[in-house]
Amino acid sequence: MTETFNRFYSDASHLMKKSAIREILKLTQRPDMISFAGGLPSPDSFPIEDLKKITSEMMDEEGKEALQYGTTEGDLRLRTLLAERHRKDGLNLSPASIMITTGSQQALDLCGKIFINRGDVVLCGLPSYLGGLNAFSNYGAKLKGIPLDDQGMRPDLLEKTIVSLKNDGSIIKFIYIIPDFQNPTGVTLPLSRRLEIIRIAERHDLIIVEDSPYRDVRFEGTPEPMMSSLETHGRVLTLNTFSKILAPGFRLAWVTGHPEIIDKLVTSKQAADLCTPPFVQRIVARYIEKGLLDVNLKKTVDLYRNRRDYMLRCFREYMPDGIKWTEPSGGLFLFVTLPPSMDAARLLEKAIQKKVAFVCGSVFYCNNEGHNTMRINFSFTGEKDTCEGVRRLAEAIREEMASA
Amino acid sequence: MTETFNRFYSDASHLMKKSAIREILKLTQRPDMISFAGGLPSPDSFPIEDLKKITSEMMDEEGKEALQYGTTEGDLRLRTLLAERHRKDGLNLSPASIMITTGSQQALDLCGKIFINRGDVVLCGLPSYLGGLNAFSNYGAKLKGIPLDDQGMRPDLLEKTIVSLKNDGSIIKFIYIIPDFQNPTGVTLPLSRRLEIIRIAERHDLIIVEDSPYRDVRFEGTPEPMMSSLETHGRVLTLNTFSKILAPGFRLAWVTGHPEIIDKLVTSKQAADLCTPPFVQRIVARYIEKGLLDVNLKKTVDLYRNRRDYMLRCFREYMPDGIKWTEPSGGLFLFVTLPPSMDAARLLEKAIQKKVAFVCGSVFYCNNEGHNTMRINFSFTGEKDTCEGVRRLAEAIREEMASA
Repeated sequence: MTETFNRFYSDASHLMKKSAIREILKLTQRPDMISFAGGLPSPDSFPIEDLKKITSEMMDEEGKEALQYGTTEGDLRLRTLLAERHRKDGLNLSPASIMITTGSQQALDLCGKIFINRGDVVLCGLPSYLGGLNAFSNYGAKLKGIPLDDQGMRPDLLEKTIVSLKNDGSIIKFIYIIPDFQNPTGVTLPLSRRLEIIRIAERHDLIIVEDSPYRDVRFEGTPEPMMSSLETHGRVLTLNTFSKILAPGFRLAWVTGHPEIIDKLVTSKQAADLCTPPFVQRIVARYIEKGLLDVNLKKTVDLYRNRRDYMLRCFREYMPDGIKWTEPSGGLFLFVTLPPSMDAARLLEKAIQKKVAFVCGSVFYCNNEGHNTMRINFSFTGEKDTCEGVRRLAEAIREEMASA
Repeated sequence: MTETFNRFYSDASHLMKKSAIREILKLTQRPDMISFAGGLPSPDSFPIEDLKKITSEMMDEEGKEALQYGTTEGDLRLRTLLAERHRKDGLNLSPASIMITTGSQQALDLCGKIFINRGDVVLCGLPSYLGGLNAFSNYGAKLKGIPLDDQGMRPDLLEKTIVSLKNDGSIIKFIYIIPDFQNPTGVTLPLSRRLEIIRIAERHDLIIVEDSPYRDVRFEGTPEPMMSSLETHGRVLTLNTFSKILAPGFRLAWVTGHPEIIDKLVTSKQAADLCTPPFVQRIVARYIEKGLLDVNLKKTVDLYRNRRDYMLRCFREYMPDGIKWTEPSGGLFLFVTLPPSMDAARLLEKAIQKKVAFVCGSVFYCNNEGHNTMRINFSFTGEKDTCEGVRRLAEAIREEMASA
């Protein structure tokens, strides 16, 4: 299409890119395609009957309020329930420390809006969640990637990068980090690194944006403390969501942080969408009140543990030598490393011909590295499709290897 | 509160103001307060039973899809239904010309995001909807107000202002206009002015953002054509919403426009919230499919017509001489002009003591004029409260008059 309206667009709009993932998701809606591409929860995890019943009840008892405008910060009952829920994380929050958002993506966007001037630096994992990177770069942030190893972001390289950026006169606003079952790599940051990174943030006066969608999707082992529970001066904002623990179709999420920053986020949310649907907030509040969230979450975690195990079994069975993958203790993804000579984007073309899809790891690298990596989702497909999909993918890899 | 995190905030965040209206809404939640302040629909207009039934049915038949992520542009079925619905407006739209948004406020925000560079001018009614003004000024827009008379925005002054701004080297991006039952004044732009303003936009190469939340809330007379139906080159974007014709608690709205601009809005929405809740979109799609929207809308319009009539009757009965008010044929508001010597903000303090609230008209004036005006909502309160509220308000006005 010719851009007939180009002259009207803002400079910022030219920074906007369509998310590579959401574009691939369209491809994957073709029939017969087996998709490991999206970060889609399994529909089998959705408690449809319970939600149906609760919605009816809610409409009977508070339909008038649910269908009216709500406050920008979010339903007080829901925020109170979330504050209670966070006690298990060692957090002692008041509702004023919590804002409801329309998906965590909105929280990422509002963080961009309240913190970033064009040219400010945001430090992020190399690789890191694309939706976060896009949200920040839309506001003109320069993204600087900090390499991860199998324990997550490397504090030594983080501090080195900060020092060198500061020497160059850069203004750094925050560290964007996904400490638990990182997207896309699946790795989890150990306590010692959490503490170290907080100390670095203090030393260099930076905010930490802790993005935590997968924290409660843990298959084994003990959770590490949330970064916000390790820091007491309000330097850490934490982004949480119901998308992976209940249902993404509600677009319901929440941010916790220092009341002053929450207040700033509330002001920016007023102009963004006035409020998150009260209708949805009241359904979910009731669902939590009845104690159903944790019951369903346990089922979901059991389901995903099985799916991870099954996916790993298929990988071991089908994948040729020279392919490496992570074995995460939670979350939704394996991260796969191909031989350095292989290009995942070219592999994807072949894979799509064979009707299997994944996301190229390179989209998560703000410096365009990672050409030989890919992200594989294991939560969405059932056993039959997983097995067949991995078989097709392995076949595509073998052919790529042979033609190289 | 001391601003302990000031050093982190973006320049844009310092432009953000809490909406005066949303702040007043908090006040009005006090018991015994009669509020004419919000633009709140009447809860009596919410079809709770029908929505309850439809939600159950929807969950039975498409619960898995409703609880999953959806596409950013919005549910195809809903967009198709909206395209059909717009035939009555003389519009022949494809789904590619429609994007679903999380409330019209999101559409206003995204218009700001894709069009405005700091310092660009947006032309708007004097007065005009605060949520629009805030959304644009958050992106650094300079707002230039065009006076209204009892037929809406004055085209002669619009063109004069454009010429003078261009002579000064200003970049003007768009005209923000609410042609039907304008917020806050309630006036409607006649056909001749619609055509004239479109011609001015063509002559000076400007976009028109037509905000149309109240169009279908018409009590009498024949609708004027939508501005987007009078212009065929895609220069007009129209913002529509379910908030006033069904329920604001869904936060469900849609934009129509040229597919290229819609595509740009979709890209910017990806980073804003990925998608509007599919759960809500599918409920409303079913509701429309069953033909219930227009049935309920007719009831709502009848209700609001009665409430407007009753409010006008109370005004005639209680208000002292020297107070003027509009008699709108639709929408949710009267606009009241006090004697020039009176200050509505001071009156509001007195009114709140007497437990009646309104919004000062000045918040809708981007140039801080309108100190002696106020906006009165008639859709929310029932007869008893309306009568008592107007009595209290008239008493407050009389006291102010006596003390002056």
